[in-house]
Amino acid sequence: MSVQPEDAVFAIAPATGERLEPGYPVAKPADVEAACMAAAAAFPTYRATRLENRAIFLDAIAEEIMALGDDLILRVMAESGLPRARLEGERGRTCNQLRHFAGVLREGSFLEARIDPALPDRQPAPRPDLRLQNVPLGPVAVFGASNFPLAFSVAGGDTASALAAGCPVVVKAHNAHPGTSRMVADAVHRAAVRCGIPAGTFALIFGLSNEVGGALVADPRIKAVGFTGSRTGGLALMQIAAARPEPIPVYAEMSSINPVLIFPGALAERAEAIGTAFAASLQMGAGQFCTNPGLVIAVDGAGIDAFIASARASIEGAAPQTMLTPAIHAAYGDGIAWLSGHDEVETLAKGGAASGPHQARPMLFQTDAWSFDADERLGTEVFGSASLLVRAERLDDIHHLIAGLEGQLTIAIHMADSDRDAVAAILPLLETKAGRILFNGFGTGVEVSHAMVHGGPFPATSDGRSTSVGSLAIKRFLRLLCYQDMPVDLLPEPLRDDNPLALWRMTDGAMGRA
Amino acid sequence: MSVQPEDAVFAIAPATGERLEPGYPVAKPADVEAACMAAAAAFPTYRATRLENRAIFLDAIAEEIMALGDDLILRVMAESGLPRARLEGERGRTCNQLRHFAGVLREGSFLEARIDPALPDRQPAPRPDLRLQNVPLGPVAVFGASNFPLAFSVAGGDTASALAAGCPVVVKAHNAHPGTSRMVADAVHRAAVRCGIPAGTFALIFGLSNEVGGALVADPRIKAVGFTGSRTGGLALMQIAAARPEPIPVYAEMSSINPVLIFPGALAERAEAIGTAFAASLQMGAGQFCTNPGLVIAVDGAGIDAFIASARASIEGAAPQTMLTPAIHAAYGDGIAWLSGHDEVETLAKGGAASGPHQARPMLFQTDAWSFDADERLGTEVFGSASLLVRAERLDDIHHLIAGLEGQLTIAIHMADSDRDAVAAILPLLETKAGRILFNGFGTGVEVSHAMVHGGPFPATSDGRSTSVGSLAIKRFLRLLCYQDMPVDLLPEPLRDDNPLALWRMTDGAMGRA
Repeated sequence: MSVQPEDAVFAIAPATGERLEPGYPVAKPADVEAACMAAAAAFPTYRATRLENRAIFLDAIAEEIMALGDDLILRVMAESGLPRARLEGERGRTCNQLRHFAGVLREGSFLEARIDPALPDRQPAPRPDLRLQNVPLGPVAVFGASNFPLAFSVAGGDTASALAAGCPVVVKAHNAHPGTSRMVADAVHRAAVRCGIPAGTFALIFGLSNEVGGALVADPRIKAVGFTGSRTGGLALMQIAAARPEPIPVYAEMSSINPVLIFPGALAERAEAIGTAFAASLQMGAGQFCTNPGLVIAVDGAGIDAFIASARASIEGAAPQTMLTPAIHAAYGDGIAWLSGHDEVETLAKGGAASGPHQARPMLFQTDAWSFDADERLGTEVFGSASLLVRAERLDDIHHLIAGLEGQLTIAIHMADSDRDAVAAILPLLETKAGRILFNGFGTGVEVSHAMVHGGPFPATSDGRSTSVGSLAIKRFLRLLCYQDMPVDLLPEPLRDDNPLALWRMTDGAMGRA
Repeated sequence: MSVQPEDAVFAIAPATGERLEPGYPVAKPADVEAACMAAAAAFPTYRATRLENRAIFLDAIAEEIMALGDDLILRVMAESGLPRARLEGERGRTCNQLRHFAGVLREGSFLEARIDPALPDRQPAPRPDLRLQNVPLGPVAVFGASNFPLAFSVAGGDTASALAAGCPVVVKAHNAHPGTSRMVADAVHRAAVRCGIPAGTFALIFGLSNEVGGALVADPRIKAVGFTGSRTGGLALMQIAAARPEPIPVYAEMSSINPVLIFPGALAERAEAIGTAFAASLQMGAGQFCTNPGLVIAVDGAGIDAFIASARASIEGAAPQTMLTPAIHAAYGDGIAWLSGHDEVETLAKGGAASGPHQARPMLFQTDAWSFDADERLGTEVFGSASLLVRAERLDDIHHLIAGLEGQLTIAIHMADSDRDAVAAILPLLETKAGRILFNGFGTGVEVSHAMVHGGPFPATSDGRSTSVGSLAIKRFLRLLCYQDMPVDLLPEPLRDDNPLALWRMTDGAMGRA
């Protein structure tokens, strides 16, 4: 029986507009339920795997992804329109991320193991023996993202951190790259078989409409959700999760314009270099990065013309890039058309015109602080390589502009030594607005490490307490559990007196690993 | 101008049913807004206070509460109907809790400080310098609880942990103890003045209807909510918070029946002692503890009659106790009337009859596993000193019964050495159902310490990842923030290379405090 178009997800090659074979069958409600039931059935076994075995599983997933070889790269190129070098780099990042979480498991601090020894003679009442560790939440629903078809998709950061936490994962594939999704999912399955991980621990489902994803989030066996995508999509999942009989956490990374603040000293000192670096950041991956610099705020004065001139030179010399999907391309077109036609917005630079389907040109616009303040739509994300320069008359205007912004993933500060006091004065405000504050650089490039935060106050994410990149992403899928007066022969390994895993633990309030 | 009854909250003394003077003026919408505006205005200053100064503030609150002397105790006794010894103990717990969070601030691990040093020569791309710490969320709304008029109210655990986190607090007083609330709030204000804490950092408001609390949670300046109370109340706050333009986290501790599992070996060995201890736990504070043992599950057989006999002797010999409010007393009456009239429920024991207003008697009921399973209302909380013994035929029935239960704050296990394997077999299931698993004891008595979890999966709380008691309660009011390539002279103290606060930090993945 052949798969019919209405029952299957087909990729559209953005570079040609052609449909790519094969079709991937859409999950029916019974399929969604079966995946969730299998995940719930696997959970008791999977959560009980030793940390070392879970780490071996993550390492094996990385190996199996690499073993897909060039077939994977060719398929992602076809489905995403992204160039080879970028995708080889993204594959490396994806595998390193899996290995990073294997390291997090072996190190063990994520368990937050704590022991308060009994105080039997304490007055007026004895203290019981109390021991705490983090335990996994349960099956997690992960939504693949369009813009990183490997690193934020089937075996991306959400899946890696959830599996590391001990949670089974059901992934809803992004329709932009179903073939890539299938290949990577098969790699995960092979790794699971090799490592003796129970079968239901990982599943991939496809869906043409929002119904499949909605059913997944609504399923009572699902205990948390990871999502990277649009604000509309994230808000819809948040509503479904909040309306469940048992509400569950949703970690949705949604929208951010990633303000870039250029202080006067920096402008005076190196406007041209900042303009060039800005334009390069703007054009990365056709501007389809969550941390793309969509807003630049600078004080009018010495250097601003040089900044504009160098950014313009880079943008005008740029070839158009293929965007990820026809829909994303269309939305970008709408966004820049609206900006171009805005009475208070001037077009400063546009890149080379499209020479093929779904190609987009980078764009730089400018407006003044008053106009930006008067129209809140100017502060919303245009997904793609468009940015808006807001020219302020005075430094004080920057405070006012930032105070009016929504939560952001990143805020970048370009400063010179002479800007030190001005930056120090605005830092406390910036700290309430972003998940990452960076200096003399741009937010594109999100390191997978221990101190990274890829998160931020709403609406950058649904849950500004968390990060979706870096070690601490694992905490999203854990909860606290305390054991009181537990017989020693029942104690879980991380909480045994002899500390067989050599964990850093807090004992009676003091850190140590004795 | 005198306060009119319709504009003011008056306490009703539960022991007499009389109205207590004075009335406390109800907050108008403008008052709620003013409190939130003042909190938002205080936030930049308060969040910037040094950890040591914040610790001194918490210690000062404890001192000011103690300085209220017996006037406070007398007022709480009148408003709550609780006995002196219990309230003196609760006052001590409240002050120790404030001092505990002062210690958490001085120790500093709550910041989760992390440093990933730059790797300028790394290939293919250098790594920037990344530094991470937790920062406060912003103003927090706290709802005083009825059942602990000191420890879970105006200066209770939610307030102490939010203030420790660096968040201003607006408390909605519980209407059961407005005078207590006013006295404690004044103590907090005195401590704030003494310590130079900005005025808007703490506020107390009163409200007769749910509108005041609803307006507080809906206010855009409020960034998180702490609540201990009924499931209805908690769910209402969750809905308001989720429907805001900017949704915020709600930490609601709502309902739990705290199952007690008595294994056959324990029953055979010491049924009588367990029965006596159970009855004592059941009657603590007229059963108005969140961790009150509302459900006992045991396998029919040797010892069960001795357990019932000893529990019955304690319950039947017990004097009735005054409940906290007329409404709570009425709801308890409804709950035990419903159980008493249930076809499949047998009344095993009842305490002495009421001899004054709002007095309640402890009650013990029993049913069989099949009947319990068939009526889910038997698994819902009756707030007060009522408990239901479910007699199972076989050990396997216990698995089935637990699997059908909602999330719980605590599950208590009574076991003997001979029960070891049976307990080990059910532990993984219990770990998915509760925030604290305790052995050969009862959940009443919640230690304020580093390894405590007073939380649990929904509906025990709205957010099973968190705890509302113990050091880790502070994490509820923090979020992650990363600084990238920050100039050294701008670095916050916790992240400076020389580690002036001597914090435990993770540097490049390794814990240390060098």
